[in-house]
Amino acid sequence: MQASETVELTGHLVDSGLLSRILDDIGEYGGEFSIDRFDVGHRSDEQSYAKITVSAGDGQALGRLLMRLQTHGANLVDPGEATLREVERDGVFPEDFYSTTNLETVVRVGSEWIDVEQPEMDCGLLVWDEGGRIRVRTIPVSEARAGQRVVCGAGGVRVQRVPRPEVGDQVFEFMNSEVSSEKPQALLVRRIAEQMRAVKDAGRRILWVAGPAVVHTGAAPAMVALVEAGYVDVLFGGNAIATHDIEAALYGTSLGVDLAQGRGVEHGHEHHIRAINRIRRCGSIRAAVEQGVLTGGVMHALVAHDKAFVLVGSVRDDGPLPDVYTDVIEGQRAMRAELHDVAFAIMVATMLHSVATGNILPASIPLVCVDINPATVTKLADRGSTQATGVVTEVGLFLGALADELAPAG
Amino acid sequence: MQASETVELTGHLVDSGLLSRILDDIGEYGGEFSIDRFDVGHRSDEQSYAKITVSAGDGQALGRLLMRLQTHGANLVDPGEATLREVERDGVFPEDFYSTTNLETVVRVGSEWIDVEQPEMDCGLLVWDEGGRIRVRTIPVSEARAGQRVVCGAGGVRVQRVPRPEVGDQVFEFMNSEVSSEKPQALLVRRIAEQMRAVKDAGRRILWVAGPAVVHTGAAPAMVALVEAGYVDVLFGGNAIATHDIEAALYGTSLGVDLAQGRGVEHGHEHHIRAINRIRRCGSIRAAVEQGVLTGGVMHALVAHDKAFVLVGSVRDDGPLPDVYTDVIEGQRAMRAELHDVAFAIMVATMLHSVATGNILPASIPLVCVDINPATVTKLADRGSTQATGVVTEVGLFLGALADELAPAG
Amino acid sequence: MQASETVELTGHLVDSGLLSRILDDIGEYGGEFSIDRFDVGHRSDEQSYAKITVSAGDGQALGRLLMRLQTHGANLVDPGEATLREVERDGVFPEDFYSTTNLETVVRVGSEWIDVEQPEMDCGLLVWDEGGRIRVRTIPVSEARAGQRVVCGAGGVRVQRVPRPEVGDQVFEFMNSEVSSEKPQALLVRRIAEQMRAVKDAGRRILWVAGPAVVHTGAAPAMVALVEAGYVDVLFGGNAIATHDIEAALYGTSLGVDLAQGRGVEHGHEHHIRAINRIRRCGSIRAAVEQGVLTGGVMHALVAHDKAFVLVGSVRDDGPLPDVYTDVIEGQRAMRAELHDVAFAIMVATMLHSVATGNILPASIPLVCVDINPATVTKLADRGSTQATGVVTEVGLFLGALADELAPAG
Amino acid sequence: MQASETVELTGHLVDSGLLSRILDDIGEYGGEFSIDRFDVGHRSDEQSYAKITVSAGDGQALGRLLMRLQTHGANLVDPGEATLREVERDGVFPEDFYSTTNLETVVRVGSEWIDVEQPEMDCGLLVWDEGGRIRVRTIPVSEARAGQRVVCGAGGVRVQRVPRPEVGDQVFEFMNSEVSSEKPQALLVRRIAEQMRAVKDAGRRILWVAGPAVVHTGAAPAMVALVEAGYVDVLFGGNAIATHDIEAALYGTSLGVDLAQGRGVEHGHEHHIRAINRIRRCGSIRAAVEQGVLTGGVMHALVAHDKAFVLVGSVRDDGPLPDVYTDVIEGQRAMRAELHDVAFAIMVATMLHSVATGNILPASIPLVCVDINPATVTKLADRGSTQATGVVTEVGLFLGALADELAPAG
Repeated sequence: MQASETVELTGHLVDSGLLSRILDDIGEYGGEFSIDRFDVGHRSDEQSYAKITVSAGDGQALGRLLMRLQTHGANLVDPGEATLREVERDGVFPEDFYSTTNLETVVRVGSEWIDVEQPEMDCGLLVWDEGGRIRVRTIPVSEARAGQRVVCGAGGVRVQRVPRPEVGDQVFEFMNSEVSSEKPQALLVRRIAEQMRAVKDAGRRILWVAGPAVVHTGAAPAMVALVEAGYVDVLFGGNAIATHDIEAALYGTSLGVDLAQGRGVEHGHEHHIRAINRIRRCGSIRAAVEQGVLTGGVMHALVAHDKAFVLVGSVRDDGPLPDVYTDVIEGQRAMRAELHDVAFAIMVATMLHSVATGNILPASIPLVCVDINPATVTKLADRGSTQATGVVTEVGLFLGALADELAPAG
Repeated sequence: MQASETVELTGHLVDSGLLSRILDDIGEYGGEFSIDRFDVGHRSDEQSYAKITVSAGDGQALGRLLMRLQTHGANLVDPGEATLREVERDGVFPEDFYSTTNLETVVRVGSEWIDVEQPEMDCGLLVWDEGGRIRVRTIPVSEARAGQRVVCGAGGVRVQRVPRPEVGDQVFEFMNSEVSSEKPQALLVRRIAEQMRAVKDAGRRILWVAGPAVVHTGAAPAMVALVEAGYVDVLFGGNAIATHDIEAALYGTSLGVDLAQGRGVEHGHEHHIRAINRIRRCGSIRAAVEQGVLTGGVMHALVAHDKAFVLVGSVRDDGPLPDVYTDVIEGQRAMRAELHDVAFAIMVATMLHSVATGNILPASIPLVCVDINPATVTKLADRGSTQATGVVTEVGLFLGALADELAPAG
Repeated sequence: MQASETVELTGHLVDSGLLSRILDDIGEYGGEFSIDRFDVGHRSDEQSYAKITVSAGDGQALGRLLMRLQTHGANLVDPGEATLREVERDGVFPEDFYSTTNLETVVRVGSEWIDVEQPEMDCGLLVWDEGGRIRVRTIPVSEARAGQRVVCGAGGVRVQRVPRPEVGDQVFEFMNSEVSSEKPQALLVRRIAEQMRAVKDAGRRILWVAGPAVVHTGAAPAMVALVEAGYVDVLFGGNAIATHDIEAALYGTSLGVDLAQGRGVEHGHEHHIRAINRIRRCGSIRAAVEQGVLTGGVMHALVAHDKAFVLVGSVRDDGPLPDVYTDVIEGQRAMRAELHDVAFAIMVATMLHSVATGNILPASIPLVCVDINPATVTKLADRGSTQATGVVTEVGLFLGALADELAPAG
Repeated sequence: MQASETVELTGHLVDSGLLSRILDDIGEYGGEFSIDRFDVGHRSDEQSYAKITVSAGDGQALGRLLMRLQTHGANLVDPGEATLREVERDGVFPEDFYSTTNLETVVRVGSEWIDVEQPEMDCGLLVWDEGGRIRVRTIPVSEARAGQRVVCGAGGVRVQRVPRPEVGDQVFEFMNSEVSSEKPQALLVRRIAEQMRAVKDAGRRILWVAGPAVVHTGAAPAMVALVEAGYVDVLFGGNAIATHDIEAALYGTSLGVDLAQGRGVEHGHEHHIRAINRIRRCGSIRAAVEQGVLTGGVMHALVAHDKAFVLVGSVRDDGPLPDVYTDVIEGQRAMRAELHDVAFAIMVATMLHSVATGNILPASIPLVCVDINPATVTKLADRGSTQATGVVTEVGLFLGALADELAPAG
C-alpha cells in the first residue's frame, strides 16, 4: 500500500540544480512525486519555493526516502513531533533510527524546536535532559550506549540548507563548475589566501588536512612559513606526513638522500623506520622537540608555535610514531574534539584523511580540497561533503604560491 | 674518515636492471663504489656475479648503505657474526637495529647460519633461545619488548634474492615491462587463472585483497562464484567492501537503488549506515548469516564456505561493522596470522589494503595487483613489493572474465 | 544601453538540470534575467515550460547571449525572420553570423519555416534557392564562398532540444549520472549490445571511432568478429589504429614481438614503419588485401566485408598509410560524407578522433564513449556533445565481452 | 637457418640500464645472444664496453634485430659498407630500407664515414652526390622520390649514443628516476630556468611546444613575459592554443566570460569560432596584429617580438585560423624547418604536438615535458624520445614560477 507525505523546500532550487537532484533521488528510491506548488524566484537573487507530494511502496520505504530528501533540505510540511526510542544494546541503534545529514538541524521534542549540536553526517540524534533543559546532539553508532534515547523516523526533524555564501566570497563560485585543472591557477591561490585572511581576521581557526606529498614535493618550508604566519591552527594527518617530515628533518642532508638536490624521494628506504624509532625513543614528537632531537620541519613548527595536530593511523603504517592514534575510532574522537571554532578547512594531497575529515565536518564550514588527482576531489563531494571546492593542481607549487601570498619572505 | 666494505651478489644482474639499481642507491646515499670483479653470464640463462667495494663518509653511514644494498640481495663478502643488543624499552629498537627486507634472510649467531622466520620488510630481527635452539624472526617495532635481543648493524646477515620464477610461470614475465593498460587483456586473465589453478593443485592458499569497487562494478556475483569454486582462501579488506556488499545483499532490490538496473551506486546514501547497524545488532557477519539476516553476497559466501577474512578499519569508516578491527596494529597482527600457506596474492581495486598487505608479505609470494589506476600498482612496487605484477584494467569485467575461466556457469 | 528579448523553452527543465544551465550561462555572459512564467510539470512524465526575459549590455552582446541560449533549446518567443547576409570573401563569414548548435534547427525565410539539413555545431547556416525551393544547411567556415548567403543574428532561428530517449532506452539513463568506472560493467555491455541490435533491426548504420589501443589490448579478434557479424558499418580512425592492426597482421608472429604471448606491445619499434611502407607499395589497404599481402586483422575484415572506413591523419603520424587523409579539412569532409543513416556511434579508446566525430555529429544520434581515462569522456561532453554516454572501462575486456554478446563464438 | 653477427657498445651500460634493455629487445625479437666480452667501468665515471654475438632465425630477421639494437647504440663490430638501393616509386622505400634512430649516425659509403644530417627517427637515409661530395640525410617515406638512393640493411651504419649530460647539468639527473609529481617542484623550476639561461647565453634557440591549457590555466601573461624576456624562440602548437589565446585577447573582458574573474573557461562556447572568423577576415595572425585587431596575448607577443611559430592542424579543429597548416605532412615539414639552432625543447600541456615534435627532434637536443598527466610524459619516452625529462605538475603555476625566475616583474 502506497504511503505519501508532503515536503517543502526553499532556496535557489533551479540554478543550484537542487530540485533536479531531489527528483532524481525520488526516482532512485523507487518513489513517485507530484509537484503541488512551485513559486519560482523571478530574479537571480530571489529564492524559489516548492511543495512536493512524495509517495513510496510502504511506510518504511517512505521513511527512508524522506530522510534522504532531508539531505537536500526538503522538510516535511507537517513534521509533527520526533519519535524517541531507547538504545537497547551498546553500539546499536534502533532499526528505524534517524540518520543525520551534515546540515544544520532542529528537532521538535515536546512541542519545542531544539538545535542539534555538532551537525555530522551518518550519525544518530541523541536526546537528553540536562537539568530540565532538553538537548540534542549527533552520536556515531559506535558511541551509542544502552538506555540512551535517539530520534527515530523522519518526523519532528527539520534541516536547513546552508545558504549560498555571500557575494564577495568568490572562492566558492568555482564550486559550481566542474572539477578540472583548467582554471586560472594564480587567481585560485589568491582567493584562498583572501579567505584565510578573512577567517583569521574574524578570530576563527583554520584546519589543515595534509598528506606526505607536502614533504615529497618540497613544500615543507612553505608549510612551515604558513604555520609561523599563523595560518595553520590545527593539522589532521596520518603517520606518513609526520614520518616523512621528521625523516627529512633528521636525515635530509646527512644521508645523501638529499631533498635539496632533488634526488631520492623514492619510497621504501629504511630511513623512515629509523626516524620513527628515534621519536619513539623520545616518547613523543613534542618530547623530541624539547630534547633538541627534532629541530626543523612542519611538525617542529607546529610544536614550537603551540598548534594542535591529530595523527590517526592506518593499516599500512610502519611504526607508528608515538603520537599516532592506532585505534581509528579514538582517532575520530580526537579529530572531532579539534573542530571547535574552525571556520575554514583545506585538504592537501590526501584522500584518506580528507574523506575522514569530510565525514565529521558540518556542511556550514567551507572546505577546499587541493590535489593533483581529480578523483580525490570528486570522491569527497560524492561522500556528501557537497560544500567541497576542488582545486586540481600540483601541491608543491600551490603551497609555495600560497606562502608567497600570506607569508612573503622578507 | 671514509669507511668501506666489500659486497657481492649473484643473479641476473644485467637484464633485470638490478646492478644498475644498486649503483644508483650507492649514489643516492652519498657513497662511492669500485667494481672489483664482474663475471657476466654469457647466455640468457646464466647468472652473473659482481664484487663491489663500497665506501661512505663514516661507519654509521656505511652501515645504513650496506643495509640498503641488502634489499637488492647484495651481501657482505665477509659478513662476520651478527651483533645483538637488548631492547631497553617497550616499542623502541636500539639506534642501529638491522632493518629488514622482505627477502629470505639468514643470520649468523654463534657461527651458525639461522633462517629468519616470516620475512617482512621494515622490521627488526628478534633472536631468542628456545630450549637451546637459536631462532630468529621478524618483529615490528611496536611489538618490541624490553629485554628482547635484536640484530644490530649489517654484520652477520645475508639475504637471498628471490630467484626469477621458473620457466612457464609466464604471468610474471609481464612484470618486467612497464605498467600500462595496453596489454593483451584476455591473455592476462588466462595466465592469472592458470596460476591460480596451479596454486590450488599444489594444495596452497590464495589470498585476495579487495576494495568496494568489486561491489560497485557489479562483480560481486563473479566473486561469489570464485569463492564457491575454491579460489578464495582468505580475503583482506576494509569496512567498505564488506559494508557495500552487505548493503547490496540487504537492500539491493527493495529500496529502488537497484544494482540490477545499473542505477544509484552513488555514495553518501544512508543505506550503508543502516546495513552496518543491522549487522551490529546481529553481533557479527557470521551471526547475521546464521540468523538468516544475510543471505547473499561475497561476505555470505565466505562464511558459508568457511573461508577466512580479515577486515581492518580506517579513519574514514562509518560504524564500523562488528568484525572490523578498529585498532590498526591489531589488524596487522590478524593479517599476519592468515599468511600461512599463501602461495599467491591478488589485489583488486584497493590502494590502502594493497599497500598494507604488500608491507607484510614476503617477496617470495607472487602477487598481482589489478586496478584501473596505474598509480596504485606503481605505489605498491615503490614501497618495496618488487614482486608485484601490475594489471591496469577495469575490475568488473576482469573478475567476470576470471570467473568465466575458473568457474564457468553450468 | 540595455537590450532585452524574451525566450521560451519546453521540456524536462528541472530534473534534467537544463534550466539551471541556462541561468548559469546568462550570468557567465554578463546578462540578467527575469523569469516571467514557469509552469512546472507536476509528474515526472510531464514537461515544464519557462518564459524568461533576458537582457544584456547592448544589442550585440544580447545577440551572442541569445545564440548561446539556443544551444540549450531556448528560443525567442517572437523570432521574426532570419537576416541573411552575403559572404564577402572565401572562407570568412559576416561578423554577426549565426553560429550553429548540433540540435535540430529551423529557419524562417520569407515567412516559411525551413528545416536545417545536416545539423552540426560551430558552423554557419547557408541559405540557397534550388529551383524556387529555399534550402538551408550547415556550412563550416572554411567552405564558405563569396556570394553565398548565410544567416546572421539570432532572429528567425529556432532550435529543438532532442527529446529524452524513450522509456526502455536504458543505456542513456547512465548519461545523467557522473562519469565513473564504478558502474555495473557487465550490465553496461548488455545494454550497448541491445542498442546495437535495435539499430541494425531498424536497418540503420553503426559508426565506430577507434584508437590503436584496440590492437594493443588484444581486442582485434573481437573487433573482427563484430565486423563479420554486421555491427560495424563504418570506422573512423587515424593512421595509428590501421598501422598497428596491419603491423600485427603482417609481423604478429614472425618477428618475435608476439602479441599472442603478451609481450612486446611497446612503441617505437621499426615494425610500424615497415608495415606502412609495405602498404604504400601496394597502393592502398584494399589493394593490399586484393594482392594477398594483408590477410587478417580489423582493416582486412572491413575490406573483405565491404565496410567503409575513413582514416584522417595527424601531425604525429609516421608515413602515413596511403589511405590516410593528410589534409584534415578534407578528412572532415570525408567523415561528414559517411554520416548518412548512422543511428548510433561508439567511440573506443581515442580522444582526438572522438572529439572530431563529436564535432560533426548531430545531437540526435546517440553516442557512447568507451575509455579507461575518464577525461576523454568528460572532454567530449564539454565540447558540446551533450548526448555522449561515458563508459569508463578497459577496452580489451569490453570489446571481448561485447563480441561475446553480439557474435558468440561457436 | 640461424644467422648471427657481433655488435659492440660502449658507455654507462650498467647504471643506465642500457644493457638490460638491449638483452630484453633481443628476447622480444626472438633472437639469442652470447656476451663475448664485458669490461665493466670500475668507478662511476668510467665507461663499460660490451661485445655481444646476436643470432636470429634468418638473415632478414637478424637485419631487423640489428637495426633495433642500433637504437640503443649497439653497432656491428664489422659494419662493412652501406648497401644503397634506388627508390622505385614515389613515397615507397625498398623493402629492406634502413630505418633510422634519432641518434647521431654515420654511414660508410665508398670506404668513407659520412655524418648523417638532421638525425630523425623512423626515416630512411638518403645518399646523394653533391659536386663529388657524398652527403647523407634522413628522409621521411612520404618525401621519397623515384630514383633516389637510400641505405638498405644494417651494414655500413654506426650510431652514437648521446653522451650523458655533463656534470652540473642537473635537470637531467631527474631523467633517471620515475615519472612522478612527488618531486621537489620549486627546485625543478629553478633547474629548468638555469638550463634556459645557459642555452641563451650560448646563443642558441629554445623551442616551446604548448597546448591550450596554457591559456585556460591563466598562464598567458607568464608566457608573454617569457617571450618578452627572450626565452621563447619558436613555438609549435595547434589551432587550439592560438584560438583560445586570441579569443581571450579579443573577448576576455567584453563578453562576461571573464578569465580575470576565474569563471567560464568552459569549452563549446561560440566565442572561439567568432575569434577564428575575425582573424580569417584579417588574413593572418600577423595581419591582425598589424591592423590593430589583436593587441594582447601570446600570439601577439610572438608577432611583436618577431618570434617564429608553426601551427599544425588536426581533425578536431574548427575553422581553422588562417596560419594553421591543414595538411599534416606540410606541417611536419614546416616544423623541421624551424629546428635549426634549437638547443633545448620544452613541451607544455599537449600530447599530440609533443609526440609530433619528439618524432622529429634529434636525441641530442634535451627536452623537458611538463604535464599534469603522467601518461603524456610516459608516452613521449615510449615513442623513442628517450632524452625526455618528465615534470608532472600543473602548468599554470609552473609557468608562473618559471616567469618569476626568468622574467621577474618590476
